[in-house]
Amino acid sequence: MILGPLEIEGYGPVRPFAGANADLGSVGTVGGLRRTRRPGEVKLLPTIDASLDACEVRDGATLSFHHHLRNGDGVLNLVLAAAARRGLKDLHVAASSIFAIHAPLVEHIRNGVVTRITSAFVSGPVGEAVSRGQLPTPLVLTTHGGRARALEAGALAVDVAFVAAPAADRSGNISGRLGRAACGALGYPMSDVEVAGHVVAVTDALMPYPLPAIDIPQHLVDFVVEVPEIGDPAGILSGTTRPAEDATSLAIAETAAAVIAASGLLVEGFSFQTGAGGVSLATAAAVKRRMLEGGIRRSFASGGITGFHVEMLEAGLFRTLLDVQCFDLAAVNSFRRNPAHQGMSASMYANPANRGPVVNMLDAVILGAAEIDLDFNVNVTTKANGVIMGGSGGHADTAAGAKLAIITTRLTASGFPKLIERVGTLTTPGETVDVVVTEAGVAVNPRRGELALQLQAAGLPIVDIAGLKAASEQRAATHAQPQPEPAGRVVAVSEYRDGTVTDLIRSAGACVKLPRR
Amino acid sequence: MILGPLEIEGYGPVRPFAGANADLGSVGTVGGLRRTRRPGEVKLLPTIDASLDACEVRDGATLSFHHHLRNGDGVLNLVLAAAARRGLKDLHVAASSIFAIHAPLVEHIRNGVVTRITSAFVSGPVGEAVSRGQLPTPLVLTTHGGRARALEAGALAVDVAFVAAPAADRSGNISGRLGRAACGALGYPMSDVEVAGHVVAVTDALMPYPLPAIDIPQHLVDFVVEVPEIGDPAGILSGTTRPAEDATSLAIAETAAAVIAASGLLVEGFSFQTGAGGVSLATAAAVKRRMLEGGIRRSFASGGITGFHVEMLEAGLFRTLLDVQCFDLAAVNSFRRNPAHQGMSASMYANPANRGPVVNMLDAVILGAAEIDLDFNVNVTTKANGVIMGGSGGHADTAAGAKLAIITTRLTASGFPKLIERVGTLTTPGETVDVVVTEAGVAVNPRRGELALQLQAAGLPIVDIAGLKAASEQRAATHAQPQPEPAGRVVAVSEYRDGTVTDLIRSAGACVKLPRR
Repeated sequence: MILGPLEIEGYGPVRPFAGANADLGSVGTVGGLRRTRRPGEVKLLPTIDASLDACEVRDGATLSFHHHLRNGDGVLNLVLAAAARRGLKDLHVAASSIFAIHAPLVEHIRNGVVTRITSAFVSGPVGEAVSRGQLPTPLVLTTHGGRARALEAGALAVDVAFVAAPAADRSGNISGRLGRAACGALGYPMSDVEVAGHVVAVTDALMPYPLPAIDIPQHLVDFVVEVPEIGDPAGILSGTTRPAEDATSLAIAETAAAVIAASGLLVEGFSFQTGAGGVSLATAAAVKRRMLEGGIRRSFASGGITGFHVEMLEAGLFRTLLDVQCFDLAAVNSFRRNPAHQGMSASMYANPANRGPVVNMLDAVILGAAEIDLDFNVNVTTKANGVIMGGSGGHADTAAGAKLAIITTRLTASGFPKLIERVGTLTTPGETVDVVVTEAGVAVNPRRGELALQLQAAGLPIVDIAGLKAASEQRAATHAQPQPEPAGRVVAVSEYRDGTVTDLIRSAGACVKLPRR
Repeated sequence: MILGPLEIEGYGPVRPFAGANADLGSVGTVGGLRRTRRPGEVKLLPTIDASLDACEVRDGATLSFHHHLRNGDGVLNLVLAAAARRGLKDLHVAASSIFAIHAPLVEHIRNGVVTRITSAFVSGPVGEAVSRGQLPTPLVLTTHGGRARALEAGALAVDVAFVAAPAADRSGNISGRLGRAACGALGYPMSDVEVAGHVVAVTDALMPYPLPAIDIPQHLVDFVVEVPEIGDPAGILSGTTRPAEDATSLAIAETAAAVIAASGLLVEGFSFQTGAGGVSLATAAAVKRRMLEGGIRRSFASGGITGFHVEMLEAGLFRTLLDVQCFDLAAVNSFRRNPAHQGMSASMYANPANRGPVVNMLDAVILGAAEIDLDFNVNVTTKANGVIMGGSGGHADTAAGAKLAIITTRLTASGFPKLIERVGTLTTPGETVDVVVTEAGVAVNPRRGELALQLQAAGLPIVDIAGLKAASEQRAATHAQPQPEPAGRVVAVSEYRDGTVTDLIRSAGACVKLPRR
């Protein structure tokens, strides 16, 4: 039974999610038009305003941005402020992620400057405004890999990609490794600049030609604009990027590491990815100890990279890091000086429609969750009250690619149960989630019968997911979370990495479910 | 008056050359179809034969190759031998360059396995066979930048790109920096893999996943084939890559360096490119001395890189090297260990149809010539007897891009005059050649009147080009070179970087001229 509409105004036809890792067959990529340059032509423009002229930005244009400066990014705000001053309307903001610092976007939505948003992660005031129904069209929430797919396939057609460039030269070479706001790897814009109609580098560190550390090359860049500040490099470090130290987190981490060991994957060449959360990193620390004990080396870590991963690289536990984005300044420093700390594009990282992304090669991934349900579905998109506070990022991508996808979570958060009947928003399909590790035991997806036996044989505390749910409810201060009826219009569409739709999010936080297989 | 045909069988309509650095406006790029990969799918294939099956290679297919192993390359021969064994016919070989080691290609031409060739440089037996009229369709000679343009625009549609991979992993990541046949930068295949229908990495060093030094990433590669040897790394060093030491060459080099100094370009940030010939490198040495004397630093060198450039990088005379191809093992070693020695794709290097290639940023380029004529046109494609022995490579690209394009040459070679009435084949248009430096003086293109005054003021021995021609003829053992009448069918088409045609080459070495502007 399909409860949601099959065509949504401002979004178009909905293709419901039909299974992870379906064979996509051969997928088409689009070409484009590039403005060519004769010798001596000048790419430097004095202002962002001038770049909007030069790129012929009109009402309805799609402008793309990236989030390597995370909650310190100043470029999205600068560009939209310039657009608003010009009276531009109906812009489509295609930002790889949106943070609290992008709060001015709320005003641009209110004024009709921005009427469409596509992003892999939306937190802070923008998520709240969208949940209140302020954006006239549904927010499109992609995964990081799905965004790269949409760019390459032309489904997300970008008129102008604005690259927050920690350093640039006058020909448009861009470096993430130099400048006052060095952010390290530039994996997300690497995918944008390949397909955008125009590309503008916005920098606060214009350096002599040519840059000695080029991350995005000149022949893909149309214009260079110098501004006083592209953002606050301190904002790169947002959220926890050190291992948790409390007893409960450490216990969960130890169990998760034991799950990996029991799975048989913790052998020479073992690879993994973790989020930057405290439990994830504590798990990484526990895995690290087991690797050291077992003499296991020569693996890799991928995704967003922290100083913790760098320490493991330098300790010889990784052969290389494949970094789409640095999560802290220790990672930025490492990316700057260590050639074995390699960058990768969003497409190389996680796009399901290329010839094989890095996520396909992961042994294990450690992920968090806001909610998990009885089908192992995970929500990292909305809060218990239904308000948008995130999105997949690489969550659904890595879960689909890794041999072993582990969700580590406490049973409750802020008094609410995290294991529930049905997730508020389906971000990552349960069929791609193998194990849920909590302080009350480990639940194994029934699809992974053999894995359950392995974990049981290793003496791990296996419980079924319903048991975890019961324990979660028991410990919650709020016995049953509020379950508002689906109401209001669709304010956001949660897209799976292949462009199908896993869920619809309605205003006032209510959700309409698509049929599950 | 157009003497040549406007449509050539096996080539199509001829667009005659209409001027260098014309405004190409906005240029379209093509998309393609990529076969996607689910987690766990295997890219390793046991043989090249298996890759021909997997890529569904049929009669008439276009197979591309690159020449980073130069005269040591084994991959083109291996693939075509496999194709011949299968009875494939009418293949189109799109190799970035062809050397003497590719002599087996002559047999494949004779047997109808290969009936089309596109390349930026063809020397050795293949050039001779083409000149004898053995290839049934005209050889298309592009520039290095023009080849990248044709690839991106879809004018050169590649079915399968074979990448000679000094190292690869099972997911298709490729490194030029590792393995027994490490060749350094991989600039040419970087452009092929972006657009080819299929991409096959052929390697003799299959390493654990993931490579710690990735030059071409996995998501662009379909298959990996391991072979005993991809070639002979000693063949990378082919031709002279050390400065000449004889008195005449040194005199020419000193004069060329003095020309650069007098032009006013030899200031902070000065950049240049040289070929790998002895006179070119002797000029680089003379420029180096002047830079050291003047305390000039922080420039760059681009193109094919030698140990000589590496020494200058390490001496602090360059901020960075932008390397499309390493010309010797010293360059390979530097590329492996020095991050300031950066790789670049053929498109970034020289494609006139992107947003601005590196050649556009060159101050000076030092180039050689087989012949130069009274219009400053240069031939580096055919010998005096009209037989194909080379092609533009980056010659026409750098001449068009650089502020100052200098041809350094002796007046005669093998007894023949090098300055003649009209070049046998027009490779690089005279309008992009600024100065010709010989042992008998310096000729300045009349288009560069101000430059002539600068050189005169600096006391340089200025003569007009007719004077150089007279001196050249006087010194030649053969007073006038044989000038066979245009005869036979068109065996090769010399394309300018924008896809227009600068010249047609007929069998028996005779040439038909297109009108000059």
